[in-house]
Amino acid sequence: MLTVRHFLAAVLFVCHASILHAQQTISMSSPDKAVLLTIGNNSTGNVTYRISYKGKNVIEPSGLGFVFSKPQITLTTFSITSTDSSTVDQTWKPVWGEVSQIRDHHKELAVTLAAKGSSGISVRVRFRVFNDGVGFRYEFPQQKALTHFVVDDEKTQFTFAADHKTFWIPGDYDTNEYLYNFTRLSEVDALSAANKEKDIALKSLVGADVIQSPLLAKTADGLYVSIFEAALINYPVMHLRLDKKALRLTAQLVPDAVGNKAYLQTPAQTPWRTIIVSDKATDLLSSKLILNLNEPSVITDPSWIKPQKFVGMWWEMHIGKANWEKANGKHGANTQNVKTYIDFAAKYGFDGVLVEGWNVGWEDWFGNWKENVFDFVTPYPDYNLDSLTAYAQRKGVRIIMHHETSGSVTNYERRMDAAFQYMVKEGINTVKTGYVGRIIPRGEHHDSQWMVGHYQRVAEKAAQYRIMLDSHESSRPTGLHRTYPNWMASEAARGSEFNNAPTLGITPEHTTILPFTRMLGGPMDFTPGLFRFKLNQFDSTRTTRVRTTLAKQLALYITIYSPLQMAADLPENYEKHLDALQFIRDVAVDWDDTKILAAEPGDYVTIARKAKGKTDWFLGAITDENSRDQTIALDFLDPGKTYEATLYRDAANADWQTNPEAYTIEKKQVTSQTRLPIHLAKGGGCAIRLVRQ
Amino acid sequence: MLTVRHFLAAVLFVCHASILHAQQTISMSSPDKAVLLTIGNNSTGNVTYRISYKGKNVIEPSGLGFVFSKPQITLTTFSITSTDSSTVDQTWKPVWGEVSQIRDHHKELAVTLAAKGSSGISVRVRFRVFNDGVGFRYEFPQQKALTHFVVDDEKTQFTFAADHKTFWIPGDYDTNEYLYNFTRLSEVDALSAANKEKDIALKSLVGADVIQSPLLAKTADGLYVSIFEAALINYPVMHLRLDKKALRLTAQLVPDAVGNKAYLQTPAQTPWRTIIVSDKATDLLSSKLILNLNEPSVITDPSWIKPQKFVGMWWEMHIGKANWEKANGKHGANTQNVKTYIDFAAKYGFDGVLVEGWNVGWEDWFGNWKENVFDFVTPYPDYNLDSLTAYAQRKGVRIIMHHETSGSVTNYERRMDAAFQYMVKEGINTVKTGYVGRIIPRGEHHDSQWMVGHYQRVAEKAAQYRIMLDSHESSRPTGLHRTYPNWMASEAARGSEFNNAPTLGITPEHTTILPFTRMLGGPMDFTPGLFRFKLNQFDSTRTTRVRTTLAKQLALYITIYSPLQMAADLPENYEKHLDALQFIRDVAVDWDDTKILAAEPGDYVTIARKAKGKTDWFLGAITDENSRDQTIALDFLDPGKTYEATLYRDAANADWQTNPEAYTIEKKQVTSQTRLPIHLAKGGGCAIRLVRQ
Repeated sequence: MLTVRHFLAAVLFVCHASILHAQQTISMSSPDKAVLLTIGNNSTGNVTYRISYKGKNVIEPSGLGFVFSKPQITLTTFSITSTDSSTVDQTWKPVWGEVSQIRDHHKELAVTLAAKGSSGISVRVRFRVFNDGVGFRYEFPQQKALTHFVVDDEKTQFTFAADHKTFWIPGDYDTNEYLYNFTRLSEVDALSAANKEKDIALKSLVGADVIQSPLLAKTADGLYVSIFEAALINYPVMHLRLDKKALRLTAQLVPDAVGNKAYLQTPAQTPWRTIIVSDKATDLLSSKLILNLNEPSVITDPSWIKPQKFVGMWWEMHIGKANWEKANGKHGANTQNVKTYIDFAAKYGFDGVLVEGWNVGWEDWFGNWKENVFDFVTPYPDYNLDSLTAYAQRKGVRIIMHHETSGSVTNYERRMDAAFQYMVKEGINTVKTGYVGRIIPRGEHHDSQWMVGHYQRVAEKAAQYRIMLDSHESSRPTGLHRTYPNWMASEAARGSEFNNAPTLGITPEHTTILPFTRMLGGPMDFTPGLFRFKLNQFDSTRTTRVRTTLAKQLALYITIYSPLQMAADLPENYEKHLDALQFIRDVAVDWDDTKILAAEPGDYVTIARKAKGKTDWFLGAITDENSRDQTIALDFLDPGKTYEATLYRDAANADWQTNPEAYTIEKKQVTSQTRLPIHLAKGGGCAIRLVRQ
Repeated sequence: MLTVRHFLAAVLFVCHASILHAQQTISMSSPDKAVLLTIGNNSTGNVTYRISYKGKNVIEPSGLGFVFSKPQITLTTFSITSTDSSTVDQTWKPVWGEVSQIRDHHKELAVTLAAKGSSGISVRVRFRVFNDGVGFRYEFPQQKALTHFVVDDEKTQFTFAADHKTFWIPGDYDTNEYLYNFTRLSEVDALSAANKEKDIALKSLVGADVIQSPLLAKTADGLYVSIFEAALINYPVMHLRLDKKALRLTAQLVPDAVGNKAYLQTPAQTPWRTIIVSDKATDLLSSKLILNLNEPSVITDPSWIKPQKFVGMWWEMHIGKANWEKANGKHGANTQNVKTYIDFAAKYGFDGVLVEGWNVGWEDWFGNWKENVFDFVTPYPDYNLDSLTAYAQRKGVRIIMHHETSGSVTNYERRMDAAFQYMVKEGINTVKTGYVGRIIPRGEHHDSQWMVGHYQRVAEKAAQYRIMLDSHESSRPTGLHRTYPNWMASEAARGSEFNNAPTLGITPEHTTILPFTRMLGGPMDFTPGLFRFKLNQFDSTRTTRVRTTLAKQLALYITIYSPLQMAADLPENYEKHLDALQFIRDVAVDWDDTKILAAEPGDYVTIARKAKGKTDWFLGAITDENSRDQTIALDFLDPGKTYEATLYRDAANADWQTNPEAYTIEKKQVTSQTRLPIHLAKGGGCAIRLVRQ
């Protein structure tokens, strides 16, 4: 493993400054020369960057800068006072992940800017040029001219060369649970897209031209370009405001209650603004640019952090078998019901049992902007947590705690220590947090700086108590699981629960887009594994349904990466398909290696992963609403070895609409030479376990 | 002690409903018949109340009601569906106070109102009629038509019969540290009054016609009327919006970050709206109406709550001898300096030593709206708290903790447990809290519902740790020290520190107004006891000065009631006047009885108090900028007993401007027959200790 420390090995310095009349430009290419970054500084002081990939324009000259509300100043014209560059090539090992080691190979260019005018303010923009894109951030060094400051607006631009087709969701300060739209930039209409979404309870839309990052563009000349951010700390989420004429996106930071965006104190820095680019869709999915821009783990002893699979008292509330609240007689989380789940988990080898609705407060938890909803330590009287944790322990299973805050974060922060202490006392080491509802402090948003700070505080405090974290309804991840590897997963997108949403549900293509957008930031607790597709099991009036085949549900355990994987359906539904359940029992949740075999956003994704510390591989292939035939080259297998492949595939007559439960399971002997033909039904998929003989 | 439980003894039911055409009226008089409350309900549904005192109109018919933003409804027309009445006469003992027992004698009228229209909402208005005024509150019973609701506006009115002269301070959501103005209602101009105040760092003014409660009116026909509130819990502070034409004040509730006033859930209730009235100024000062409207103590074992006197590392920072922050070389709170205070306290019998500036964070604590300022557990390296608490303990003194939040309350709430645990570990049982600066959660105000909740949370949590509380820059008290007797005192008004404010300072009349306004709500940590009057001791350029005589500083220990009394000046300044210091050493801080001997707001206050559990009395008399001669009848002394009176009085040539330090101390033998002539200099006072022989 080659590990070169930052700045110690400036192997190649390709930066060249050329003052041509009124324009100064500095260029830096990626280690493999595919990506070229060019910084310009014109006579009026505007500083721009542009990016090309293999000679194709990716980002046209795009501005940089800020407006502060305190001190009241606009920082958009600068002179370049110095530049510094270096090359880094190092390899690091994540605590868990899609691969066992990650190479961070980039060239860095730090450009120090002096603001024009009398402010005396100095800003540094640090660029890192990778083979698959560019990250840059603003740094505000400690300086006499600037100590405490308030960001009113960030002027970072991303200007496209053409009217690309893009995958986008509406800009919304409080939710990211939208379906993706796929339109040209000029056709973006965030408000009308959002208005079609009837099943999102809380929306804070920004405007017709504001969309969220990560944004994926697919260019006419064959590039895939992602605009996103990395290492979101102490700063609001970056949404994007679109200028359709200029084909330009500008950072739209999420405001706080009084309209400010960020309160900072030098030395300070923004998150990294990232542009990932490739001419292969598959390469975008294997990009480690976001992770590499995050800081190393702060957890020195991560031995207690364990990827895991779990079942839970959850989906039965969604489909009407039970309720979270106790009042109406169908309380799910009672001692006997949860024992059933513990028994099921123990019998089939699941590590954990999530229990929602266990604590008092659910009667009026939602929609009232109420502050004191839950106390996180008081079970409903019919839920004997003491006896259940003991029972689970005897069976080798752990209960997973649920902390639904209902958005009342002041209340949660007050009680967090007691809540975590209670978990420790009960021997519970994983918590699923929830932020359903309007945020308290009132006026803050899920995506504002204060809440971004909160999510980090939870991860930090959880780590103090050796607790693993799975956050729902939080802002979308930006690679912070590198720094806080106990922050295992987030929801932060439209997850499987929307299968039960009456209006749009989860379209077959949705899961083929997620890896290219939301999941670039980190693992998603999507909660796959639904084995029953019409959701009228307990309520015959329901017309909601799962829009996949059963085989696709299995394949999602591979295509949607997470070190926390739920088997979301009910024990009784699994008992009817124990042969298919076997794949979920077998599938790993931590990996030595990952191969993106085929992928096209909105169409299909095929991924193979090698189980951590083992010789087994698992493969998942999913398609959208179209059926597909693929031939998979198994050349990633150890040469000369035979593997027993167990294929969980759509039956010939499978179809998500007409015949979702039709699957076949077959075993084959394969080698690295094998080219495996697979058929994916409409809304279908294929899951394969490959065991080395 | 007569204790009649509420509602158990409806001794007199004087309520009579008379439907005369379109007007229904219900009347109730006070036990002594002096106060008459009349409720009217006209044909359009408006409900009004009016109050008279001994036949004089105090409050003209004034409306009641609400506007909710959720559900969106205006509740200003009602029909009366039922009334309920009772008489209460009970006596209770405060944990500490101005008197050892308090009689609560009132008649109660609960009027249940059905909102006109289709909402089906029911509201109860509960009136209590005392001999010295009326309190009423709105109650929202649990009901199908109303569960969670959001108050947008409260429509409670207080309509005066004439253009009274009133003592008022400008309406301001973040500070109550103004000097009082004395004008006719029609002459109120809150903005121009506020603009004269150059020494208040943070103002959130509301408008020219918005002033604060408590408001004191002095009527042409000889009445003193106070408009205020009691038991402010889970609701914003009530300011008052003035309609000059109608001579009507309407409740102006303090908004949160998004403009809402209060989030409530049935069963809910507002604080009590209070009208105290008397034809004697002295009676206003002995009113217990506010306390009687508060709930009994929730602290079952109050044995750890001890009134106390203290000195502190504080004033020397104000006058430029030292600094809070360590950076600049004049750090006050270093181990050696604090030892000096501990030695002084031990030598002269003070219980506590307040230490400000002890903990890291003061370098940039103010003005930056910074969230993570203090952690409340990290002393500056030159302050050895461990050794000091041990040192103090050996000398029989306790250090008083200081928690300056700088308004960053989210930060404080996160750290409060750790902060109190640290105090307990160090054997510290009193904390002075501070809220200097803009509030975080950003957009909240010092007086908004969330902050009102915070102050209560601090009192409650402090009680859990058996910690006594002295809150500065909080909203003004409303009698909650009955419910939380560990909440000993608040600042919540312009205190003695303003003696060092360059512009207006503390006018001589200010301390004669406080008892009639701010102090109706509870004890004030005014921090009297300044013995040096020109404040250029350590900075010869300063022109600030104390606008009293020395004798008046002593008298303030009686006229400004607090169970926590600071001797605010520096040890070296006290050492020069040890004979005068003797009064502060002797004066009690807890009382069996209190007699208001003479008082006129803005002019003078003379009060005698009997030390708790002792036979000694103490007397304080203060005047405004005018000199005065009074003759004090000592008829409150035990008949037939001789007392040694030690008089600390202005010398004949004393004058706050020209000769403030001129005082004489003399001893006299007195009895209950004695009529004691005293002379008060301009800005002067007189303090007397009376020891039974």
